[in-house]
Amino acid sequence: MPENFDAMPQRFRANFINSLSGVKAANVIGTRSEAAENLAIISSVFHVGANPPLLGMLMRPHTVVRDTLENILQSGVYTINHVGSEWVDKAHHTSARFDADVSEFAQCGLTSWYSESHAAPYVQESRVKIGLRLSQHLTLENKTVLVIGHIQEVILANNTVAEDGYVDIEALGSAAITGLDSYHSTTRLARFEYAKPDTPVAVK
Amino acid sequence: MPENFDAMPQRFRANFINSLSGVKAANVIGTRSEAAENLAIISSVFHVGANPPLLGMLMRPHTVVRDTLENILQSGVYTINHVGSEWVDKAHHTSARFDADVSEFAQCGLTSWYSESHAAPYVQESRVKIGLRLSQHLTLENKTVLVIGHIQEVILANNTVAEDGYVDIEALGSAAITGLDSYHSTTRLARFEYAKPDTPVAVK
Repeated sequence: MPENFDAMPQRFRANFINSLSGVKAANVIGTRSEAAENLAIISSVFHVGANPPLLGMLMRPHTVVRDTLENILQSGVYTINHVGSEWVDKAHHTSARFDADVSEFAQCGLTSWYSESHAAPYVQESRVKIGLRLSQHLTLENKTVLVIGHIQEVILANNTVAEDGYVDIEALGSAAITGLDSYHSTTRLARFEYAKPDTPVAVK
Repeated sequence: MPENFDAMPQRFRANFINSLSGVKAANVIGTRSEAAENLAIISSVFHVGANPPLLGMLMRPHTVVRDTLENILQSGVYTINHVGSEWVDKAHHTSARFDADVSEFAQCGLTSWYSESHAAPYVQESRVKIGLRLSQHLTLENKTVLVIGHIQEVILANNTVAEDGYVDIEALGSAAITGLDSYHSTTRLARFEYAKPDTPVAVK
């Protein structure tokens, strides 16, 4: 039966629709303005392409991520940092409405760290750190902004990339989100071989 | 240190970059042409907005999802079905290169099902079924196509929507993906209250 989404109370609808896309990645975005560093949790990071290496994310211009978006557009650089299962509370705290000149790093108990070759701050506690340069941004029909970044560098612990290139982000403790406020760890069910039409899939 | 992604072997790079966005939702997309039903696994579904209710996904036009993309553009409708943890092997099988006139439903052991009010096929086995109408599509810098759909209806078991609108998709058994071929279940760490600047986050 077609739904009457318009009739739902706003908060109910936000919880409901935000649950429907399924399990989401928990990432915090590191940026800086001339005045302050900024850190914001985002559950909308997605793979755009491997060659060139591109990641996308969606941002609402008039919400708590407005500083992050402005910093990206001004500076052209940002970092994506996987949220570790043991600090999901600190990551969630970055979604509070801090003033623009306040650093979420200090307020939320996380540590900013810089590589030699990237101007935006990383989260030292993150085990998967990705440095990006803004590549494309465009406004979608509902006024959200799609930000696409070109990966400049990836900082991982040694021996965490498999021979075939797979990164076991579960072993690294990367957390997941469902809805607006629920945080999760993951457990592998299986890795499968490349699928072929005439045979059932084989476990790797 | 900046990476030399160009120097990576193609398959290695695909595995590596596809791992970096973090945990992804496992969904299968149901469509139909005049000749046949089609079903394709996608790990790029993401939330675009709650009002109006919009979901986005990325598709590469010249890959195994070309039939799905063409069907969406032709018919204007499609379904997003959460993959259940107990049938991730069947969902992965839909990624094989079946001929355009072959239905992945039958080939992969899944059942097509139609609601009274939506023209695209659902996966009967899926516990979260979402019917969408194409709302916007645009081509990104790397020639992938961003497809945004307006949610028309949501089919869930009774009593799976909380009072505040949250859908416990983990209790419903929705699976997650990392990289190209790794499937996962999830375990809740915590739900948190709306975050405030001056106080640590509280568990719900």
